[in-house]
Amino acid sequence: MRKILVIGAGKSASFLIKYLLNKSTEENLHIIVGDINIQNARKLINDHENGQAITLDVFSSHSRHDAIENADIVVSMLPARYHIEVARDCITYGKHMVTASYVSKDMEELDKAAKNKGLVFMNEIGVDPGIDHMSAMKVIDDIRSKGGKMILFESFTGGLVAPESDNNLWNYKFTWNPRNVVLAGQGGAAKFLQEGTYKYIPYNRLFRRTEFLEIEGYGRFEAYANRDSLKYQSAYGMDDIKTLYRGTIRRVGYGRAWNIFVLLGMTADDYTIEDSENMSYRDFINAFLPYSHTDSVELKFRHALKIDQDDIVWDKLEELDLFSKTKMVELKEATPAQILQKILMDSWTLEDDDKDMIVMYHKFGYQLNGEMHQIDSTMVAKGDDRTYTAMSKTVGLPVAIATLAILNEKITTPGVQIPIHKEVYEPILNELEDFGIKFSEKEVPYLGYNPLNV
Amino acid sequence: MRKILVIGAGKSASFLIKYLLNKSTEENLHIIVGDINIQNARKLINDHENGQAITLDVFSSHSRHDAIENADIVVSMLPARYHIEVARDCITYGKHMVTASYVSKDMEELDKAAKNKGLVFMNEIGVDPGIDHMSAMKVIDDIRSKGGKMILFESFTGGLVAPESDNNLWNYKFTWNPRNVVLAGQGGAAKFLQEGTYKYIPYNRLFRRTEFLEIEGYGRFEAYANRDSLKYQSAYGMDDIKTLYRGTIRRVGYGRAWNIFVLLGMTADDYTIEDSENMSYRDFINAFLPYSHTDSVELKFRHALKIDQDDIVWDKLEELDLFSKTKMVELKEATPAQILQKILMDSWTLEDDDKDMIVMYHKFGYQLNGEMHQIDSTMVAKGDDRTYTAMSKTVGLPVAIATLAILNEKITTPGVQIPIHKEVYEPILNELEDFGIKFSEKEVPYLGYNPLNV
Repeated sequence: MRKILVIGAGKSASFLIKYLLNKSTEENLHIIVGDINIQNARKLINDHENGQAITLDVFSSHSRHDAIENADIVVSMLPARYHIEVARDCITYGKHMVTASYVSKDMEELDKAAKNKGLVFMNEIGVDPGIDHMSAMKVIDDIRSKGGKMILFESFTGGLVAPESDNNLWNYKFTWNPRNVVLAGQGGAAKFLQEGTYKYIPYNRLFRRTEFLEIEGYGRFEAYANRDSLKYQSAYGMDDIKTLYRGTIRRVGYGRAWNIFVLLGMTADDYTIEDSENMSYRDFINAFLPYSHTDSVELKFRHALKIDQDDIVWDKLEELDLFSKTKMVELKEATPAQILQKILMDSWTLEDDDKDMIVMYHKFGYQLNGEMHQIDSTMVAKGDDRTYTAMSKTVGLPVAIATLAILNEKITTPGVQIPIHKEVYEPILNELEDFGIKFSEKEVPYLGYNPLNV
Repeated sequence: MRKILVIGAGKSASFLIKYLLNKSTEENLHIIVGDINIQNARKLINDHENGQAITLDVFSSHSRHDAIENADIVVSMLPARYHIEVARDCITYGKHMVTASYVSKDMEELDKAAKNKGLVFMNEIGVDPGIDHMSAMKVIDDIRSKGGKMILFESFTGGLVAPESDNNLWNYKFTWNPRNVVLAGQGGAAKFLQEGTYKYIPYNRLFRRTEFLEIEGYGRFEAYANRDSLKYQSAYGMDDIKTLYRGTIRRVGYGRAWNIFVLLGMTADDYTIEDSENMSYRDFINAFLPYSHTDSVELKFRHALKIDQDDIVWDKLEELDLFSKTKMVELKEATPAQILQKILMDSWTLEDDDKDMIVMYHKFGYQLNGEMHQIDSTMVAKGDDRTYTAMSKTVGLPVAIATLAILNEKITTPGVQIPIHKEVYEPILNELEDFGIKFSEKEVPYLGYNPLNV
């Protein structure tokens, strides 16, 4: 039997392991799931005859070496910063490797060694990054094969709550790491290209310069710009493209309300609040407002942010119990971002039977025979429940399919890579359709920022 | 003759050297001014018989040692980061030392060595820090000696343009390092105490939460909070004070206009703008606004920042030629802050006969015999011209007076220190009055944030 080692049995491993176990008999697979906490691994193996749970401490080189040496291919579902030790061992023992994470500088440096040993080191093969690369490159390669020239590419992804479980005014719940949601957009201006001009948006305006998106059957969304929209410009072969924009999808109105947290300073993570553990939520808010012995926190807040009393944004804030005198922060030496995260987790945590939803939207503008064209490609995937989420499905399935394809020598090009080549994306996108992860592509009138090219 | 070595003959050394030369005959002083560029030193010595210009390269230990060993006391007017090597040499050769800079961690660590050798290492004895310490501690010590208990201390300083040279809509010109003005307030939330509550202001709101100040004969000013108002809380003996706030003074309206630069992202210094050298000022502004092939930069700007056409803030922006198509940035790989600085220097550089002005305002709230009291203390100092500025006068004179007082053994307490003790501030404040640097103190009704103590 061929041995697949999966390291890390966290949230996004559920569909991945399920897929591999389901294929294990026909494909002659033995699935070894290693986690620092063996119970996590056992839960996902669920006594399957071709599965095996082991305790694996990634910080113990002994534990790591044993497991990796014994495998035919290694999948790392660890947090991104822990991949590199696994990757180095894979080079040592001559094993292929798959991750859903961004290619780090350290990982990049293993490219030559991987190529020398004929090893496939596939990264960024989850949902975003992952399905976004594959679904985009498929259309881009199609356009180019017809002789078209790309002039605009915009790509948006969002992890949201499915409409049937959407019961708060923000139309949002946490479907992945809440801390990343709270810190989104920090650390420098967002940068992108519009009609050949570089554009920059500072953090304090990021959530107010959104773009609307419409998906049939799902209504309207908004998207705010990612930090670096130009990250894949060269990898996608778009060095001379005029418009290049990548963004994150939310329901309309989220950004305007979120920006209030940004403006008030509640998302800051670079200092701690004095005596935070003994504060009520109301005290926390009041720390960002001027002192007054007469005016209420509510009125100071409305005045500071110029919020009218009938503005829906106010209901959004009240829904979070932001002004509660009795709910306590209870976190010691916490940053504003940590406190805000706690407040939001009271309201935005998925219930057991809540379904999440992944939404993706690409716009491809191109020139063909002197005419401007546009293709819009959209995908919506829903989760089953709080364990088998759309997030774990769209992250785990491409990882699983790629792992098997590498093992079966359908994907053979060696080296540290991301899934932007036909050899990789074509079979994976095809198989993803069987799981309902399907893009709907349609030709639309060219709607770039300057449709008449004046 | 007693030898005073002044290292660094930059802008703020003019009054310092003039004072020492004027005293040199009666006090039997020989003033040695060392600078990497001997011309700077010669200019300030101006052939005075008791003065001597030398070339001093602070990075050459040989050059440094020779000069320091030969002196009786050393004044370092170098940029703050270069003091430490001079300070270490002063320990080695047993010389007193004076600087106008903040006490660095490295400097702090020399405290014990200085005490062991009986050396006075006086720091923060310029204007801010310096005159602010002295003038505040004088009133605070007075209040305490009467049995009063400090409950509020607010302290504000500003380097501005004098009314007679004030001819732009911002009522501001650069009187010190323009880069520091552009970057003011960056690097974390401002923190202070109001009525026993810690308050935090994020950068994007800093210039909108100002406090008004009125100075007789000079009209109204505004002040925005410094990064850390609590810095001297313990040094001033105010660990249980209720309100503690330190701020920077500008003319009313400056903050609201400056905040537009902050919101648009023009003060960012953490990334560079693509192709900055070939941009016009207008292109630079447009980089922060959405693309449009129809709407003007002006309209996009007004819409983004919600500026009405009759708003004076707009005139302030136009006065800077911000929308010029012909004025070019001409800086390679520049950050937004560097470009903004260049634009502002076109408009805000002092003319030869322009006078600058230092404004200081302290509020002292205290309780005495069960009653609340307040003393307001203000000081305005004007410069003579672009060389003999109020800035160099208020920085240089306290340094000079302290230097002579140490030499004359009027100030004898050894160690690394700041001028918060009566031994130091009393003679210096007295002598500063002869130069027109005089505080006007008056009792006012207690005007704290909660005057009725409800």
